[in-house]
Amino acid sequence: MIKSKAAIAWGPGQPLSIEEVDVMPPQAGEVLVRIVATGVCHTDAFTLSGEDPEGIFPAILGHEGGGVVEQVGEGVTSVAVGDHVVPLYTPECGECKFCKSGKTNLCQKIRETQGKGLMPDGTTRFYKDGEPIFHYMGCSTFSEYTVLPEIALAKVNKEAPLDEVCLLGCGVTTGMGAVMNTAKVEEGATVAVFGLGGVGLSAIIGAAMAKADRIIAIDINESKFDLARKLGATDCINPKDYEKSIQEVIVELTDGGVDYSFECIGNVHTMRSALECCHKGWGESVIIGVAGAGQEIATRPFQLVTGRVWKGSAFGGVKGRSELPGYVDRYMAGEFSLDDFITHRMPLESINEAFDLMHEGKSIRTVIEYGKKD
Amino acid sequence: MIKSKAAIAWGPGQPLSIEEVDVMPPQAGEVLVRIVATGVCHTDAFTLSGEDPEGIFPAILGHEGGGVVEQVGEGVTSVAVGDHVVPLYTPECGECKFCKSGKTNLCQKIRETQGKGLMPDGTTRFYKDGEPIFHYMGCSTFSEYTVLPEIALAKVNKEAPLDEVCLLGCGVTTGMGAVMNTAKVEEGATVAVFGLGGVGLSAIIGAAMAKADRIIAIDINESKFDLARKLGATDCINPKDYEKSIQEVIVELTDGGVDYSFECIGNVHTMRSALECCHKGWGESVIIGVAGAGQEIATRPFQLVTGRVWKGSAFGGVKGRSELPGYVDRYMAGEFSLDDFITHRMPLESINEAFDLMHEGKSIRTVIEYGKKD
Repeated sequence: MIKSKAAIAWGPGQPLSIEEVDVMPPQAGEVLVRIVATGVCHTDAFTLSGEDPEGIFPAILGHEGGGVVEQVGEGVTSVAVGDHVVPLYTPECGECKFCKSGKTNLCQKIRETQGKGLMPDGTTRFYKDGEPIFHYMGCSTFSEYTVLPEIALAKVNKEAPLDEVCLLGCGVTTGMGAVMNTAKVEEGATVAVFGLGGVGLSAIIGAAMAKADRIIAIDINESKFDLARKLGATDCINPKDYEKSIQEVIVELTDGGVDYSFECIGNVHTMRSALECCHKGWGESVIIGVAGAGQEIATRPFQLVTGRVWKGSAFGGVKGRSELPGYVDRYMAGEFSLDDFITHRMPLESINEAFDLMHEGKSIRTVIEYGKKD
Repeated sequence: MIKSKAAIAWGPGQPLSIEEVDVMPPQAGEVLVRIVATGVCHTDAFTLSGEDPEGIFPAILGHEGGGVVEQVGEGVTSVAVGDHVVPLYTPECGECKFCKSGKTNLCQKIRETQGKGLMPDGTTRFYKDGEPIFHYMGCSTFSEYTVLPEIALAKVNKEAPLDEVCLLGCGVTTGMGAVMNTAKVEEGATVAVFGLGGVGLSAIIGAAMAKADRIIAIDINESKFDLARKLGATDCINPKDYEKSIQEVIVELTDGGVDYSFECIGNVHTMRSALECCHKGWGESVIIGVAGAGQEIATRPFQLVTGRVWKGSAFGGVKGRSELPGYVDRYMAGEFSLDDFITHRMPLESINEAFDLMHEGKSIRTVIEYGKKD
């Protein structure tokens, strides 16, 4: 057992509390990781707010990290002490029906226990004063030391700066992967991206890497437009500037609609707009954003019968263990930048400020660095 | 100008009236076709009922025909007098943005005039006592002689019996094509087909031809089950036999859901069931049925984010001129049968009876034969 600094979420709506927790040693098939840096993502805020119907407390949140293997449990063979790793909230066991299908990244091997905030054996590795603290999305990167199943770790290039590639643990891969993996945007395509948070901006990067001809960025917060343009957006649109629906505006602007659209907000009305701004005959819309519990999307079936496709993706359709290391290598080769995403850096002690900045729309990503002094 | 026997729809909700009409000669790019046989389809009934918001009267309905070229207009080169043809309500010009995309069969070249019941030059070829009668879906196969644009004719094998392959002009191709073209069902797949009319039964044939392992047929009319089984269904389910939702029943029956589902009814609630009975991670649902005006489909976006795909198709995604002749050849090679679909045959004079049989659920397809005596 070791001691670790962690930000504990004691209950919904409460600020995180920086405390020292006990971390149990990794069991068979598990790995102890020292987190070097972690992003703070909207999904953490969603769960902390209490609106996540699957939210469990007390828990250690955080799921966008980069770290170093400190200790391996019995039978662990694919990572070794000293390896650099990115924790995966979507693991890749390689053995379940889903992994073997070749059609999805949604490995279900440990889904049930992970959803309950527990390790695969049904217990937790975190304790505070003898009381169990739950894991979160199988990652809990808001603890400097955390335990993960071996199948939930992507081993990445040791040269890669962990305080940057930690963002590939969620938002950036989700946006880029949706474009490159799920939609497979091709050269010359016309693309619309709804919502210019970290995921939406990453979708723009992905579309630019795919050599899309036209990349239309849509947001009601125009302060995001400069960065969107820098990353590759060719048109920036604020729906509030129009009396018509945004789908009508885009259909007119593009002579019939876009080839691909991406909803990166989690708003069911925007999801409909994203579908309906697609071109008749072939336009595909990918839902990335996570909507509130119980909310529904709707459209007229004629939209689909006339050739539009409605799909979605989680973690960009990327298989974490086999494909994420390639994203890191492409980053190291200079194919895309992460600098623009990291608007703030701070130590764990300031993590509540990171949530405030996000809620105020002032940050894209704040990176928490465990080595950073307050 | 020639005289032709035709069934005229004078107004919504009225029986068709058998009369002699004047048919004008084919103009540039147009072809006069003598229809040998035509199916009677639910879409004809939908328009005749008055519920079709695009319905125009007076008109000559019918869109599932087979015929012989009688005369060609100026500049027509791809068909000649004596050729056997199937009229196409979805033409294929080969030149528009849609045809050139390689991604859709929805040629838009003459969409606007066709929707108004007119030939591409904005006029009609049918007259009764000097008053114009509108075309329907660009086909009007309920007239023995009809005029079509050259781009709306598939030239087919002369050996093929027109009183059978006329069904490839709509329902059968729609169902088979949705399976083979739109969904691309692969060997070993699990498939669900909702609705066992002509389209649904054709989807079953398509799934059997694709060598799907399991084909689940769903209908509330159990009298369709014997034929469904004969055509390849492995399971026949009546949703009324269960207290659970049909999607729950199918998910349990298939250990997680089907790989592909097809909605062949036009009911927006069944469309939701068809999506939600698909397997997490990869299940695809194809909407084929046409819903009533203004009706909407809905689901939770989580269904898509976790990997299901919602799409649709019209005329089975089949490009009429380039691909339909291949369907006729496969029919001639014995790869599938059409006998089972043709439950009734009658002359044009009895066409209102054909509508009655359809409404009563007693027929799958009635074929109207112009050469048949009453």
